[in-house]
Amino acid sequence: MQALYWNDEKQSVMVLDQRELPYREVWIEIKTYTEMAKAIQDMLLRGAPLIGIAAAFGMALAAKDKADLCIADKILRETRPTAVNLMWALDQVQDLLQSIIMDEPQSIYQKILRKAKWIQQDDLNRCKAMSEHACAYLKNKFSNKLYQGYKLKVLTHCNAGALATGGYGTALGIIRSLHEANILEMVFANETRPRQQGSRLTAWELAYEKIPVTLNTDTMPAYLMQNSMIDCVIVGADRISLNGDCANKIGTLQLAIVAKYFDIPFFVAAPKSTIDYSIQTGSQIVIEQRDYSEINMINGKLCTPSKGVNFINPGFDVTPNYLIEAVFTEDGILSKSLQAFQ
Amino acid sequence: MQALYWNDEKQSVMVLDQRELPYREVWIEIKTYTEMAKAIQDMLLRGAPLIGIAAAFGMALAAKDKADLCIADKILRETRPTAVNLMWALDQVQDLLQSIIMDEPQSIYQKILRKAKWIQQDDLNRCKAMSEHACAYLKNKFSNKLYQGYKLKVLTHCNAGALATGGYGTALGIIRSLHEANILEMVFANETRPRQQGSRLTAWELAYEKIPVTLNTDTMPAYLMQNSMIDCVIVGADRISLNGDCANKIGTLQLAIVAKYFDIPFFVAAPKSTIDYSIQTGSQIVIEQRDYSEINMINGKLCTPSKGVNFINPGFDVTPNYLIEAVFTEDGILSKSLQAFQ
Repeated sequence: MQALYWNDEKQSVMVLDQRELPYREVWIEIKTYTEMAKAIQDMLLRGAPLIGIAAAFGMALAAKDKADLCIADKILRETRPTAVNLMWALDQVQDLLQSIIMDEPQSIYQKILRKAKWIQQDDLNRCKAMSEHACAYLKNKFSNKLYQGYKLKVLTHCNAGALATGGYGTALGIIRSLHEANILEMVFANETRPRQQGSRLTAWELAYEKIPVTLNTDTMPAYLMQNSMIDCVIVGADRISLNGDCANKIGTLQLAIVAKYFDIPFFVAAPKSTIDYSIQTGSQIVIEQRDYSEINMINGKLCTPSKGVNFINPGFDVTPNYLIEAVFTEDGILSKSLQAFQ
Repeated sequence: MQALYWNDEKQSVMVLDQRELPYREVWIEIKTYTEMAKAIQDMLLRGAPLIGIAAAFGMALAAKDKADLCIADKILRETRPTAVNLMWALDQVQDLLQSIIMDEPQSIYQKILRKAKWIQQDDLNRCKAMSEHACAYLKNKFSNKLYQGYKLKVLTHCNAGALATGGYGTALGIIRSLHEANILEMVFANETRPRQQGSRLTAWELAYEKIPVTLNTDTMPAYLMQNSMIDCVIVGADRISLNGDCANKIGTLQLAIVAKYFDIPFFVAAPKSTIDYSIQTGSQIVIEQRDYSEINMINGKLCTPSKGVNFINPGFDVTPNYLIEAVFTEDGILSKSLQAFQ
């Protein structure tokens, strides 16, 4: 399943409108970089790796239209301040640009397009490599239980799946691999309010691939853990600081604290492009404050008349490194501190 | 604000349909005990104390109609297995019945009706007494800060307000008192999925009374605490075991764990009728499993097409006593263990 692809014939990007899932499968044709910026900002597509891929294709569209690539870069960069992959992908394009700046416009366009396609394929490869590392780690960690025919029950938050990436997934990529290895009993998916990525995307994606999934609200993880229904938690990440603190979808921190309380291992799955080498700790990560209508409305229906009611809507929170047993990456497994990658 | 009252003229019970809030204020006339049982089961009214009051009025309606009071008692008892106040209120009526069993039917009806009215007024008195104890405790606990003009930021879950009780509230009753004492800065209300009692009822009730309230989703409490936005947590309870373990709305356990992690005091507010003297620990509390449609739908709209997706919907969870700093009751403050009440 790929939520974004380049259409060679039309020379444009086809994007699955994830806001319409799970009701309808609507594909939108994105023809300009400004349309792409708007698509990212409006969360027509989401997921840190996919946002990076989309931004790279956005630069290709800008080059095709002979737009000012400096302005295009700036506008795309400002769409989602927390997603470091966005910056990483745009940096990749900028590095390339340095070496081809004297080329003909058509050549620049072709080379940026090739780069964008490479970023997508590369993400797919990285997700698969990450899954192999994680699967080996988990098989070893739970070897005593698995040896007796036990299968794992995994809790996840938000959507770190094929829909969020180049086409395989980080947290859900690992879950795919566990399923393929026949050692997965059940995935519990948090609904993930306020945008319900869990119920709309994760439950849909897993059911689509016939991987056993149980949907629960965000109020239930502690109950599930207290009743021995969870063996481990695996989530994605939007930005990781050098000390291994992880910013991810709002609600992740709470999940990590509760997992620690019940002594259940908590894992993060993220490509190395998620690591922000410019920040030492998570306290430096800027948290995006999103529109109040996401709290006020559910599925487009007004849930709380706002007269006299205030709202707060942080999009992410930061989980400190000591609550995370390991970060699974495409190059291997990091734990507690990411210093090895400096 | 009273969500239920006896109409002397019609000799029936008027109940505010809380499923319609905050959109419409719809009052339903309940004429028979079977209608009352259905109203409790369908959650037309909710909140542990209010359910007890409603059941007592249900017995009055049964006596008015000369129904079999044994069967009426049984049917009302089975409507909501977790709410111990329901059992307590019906026990009160049963105790009375023992002494008036030889009376004329009309006299039995009048005496049960008087008992039901007394239970409601008594709940109101108890909530106010509880608020006074709690307010004194909190003023003392935060005296250093309050002395400097600081005001408290309180987080609550579900709805333990006037809408859940005889007319004042347990957790929200205390919050009312803090507001009246001019030492309340802000109430943060968890949305409380799957039934959104926080956004539908608590936010509505507080805004109605002009008490400052901010609505957040159930994924946000850890973020709020990490960012020093919460001074204490106050929630209600549906059942308390003798060792002080508290069953309350699903999501309460998670909140208590996160509060402990951030060293933020966690309080439960409940009348003594919530204590179940027949059980030693929370592990003996039966957790009601509710219908999957509550997870699947939000505000009546299908959120997750259920094809291939499983659901889980426990209505409550149990918070162990050591996560609770104190239980506020009408007779004073209990901490860690309730042994004093045996």
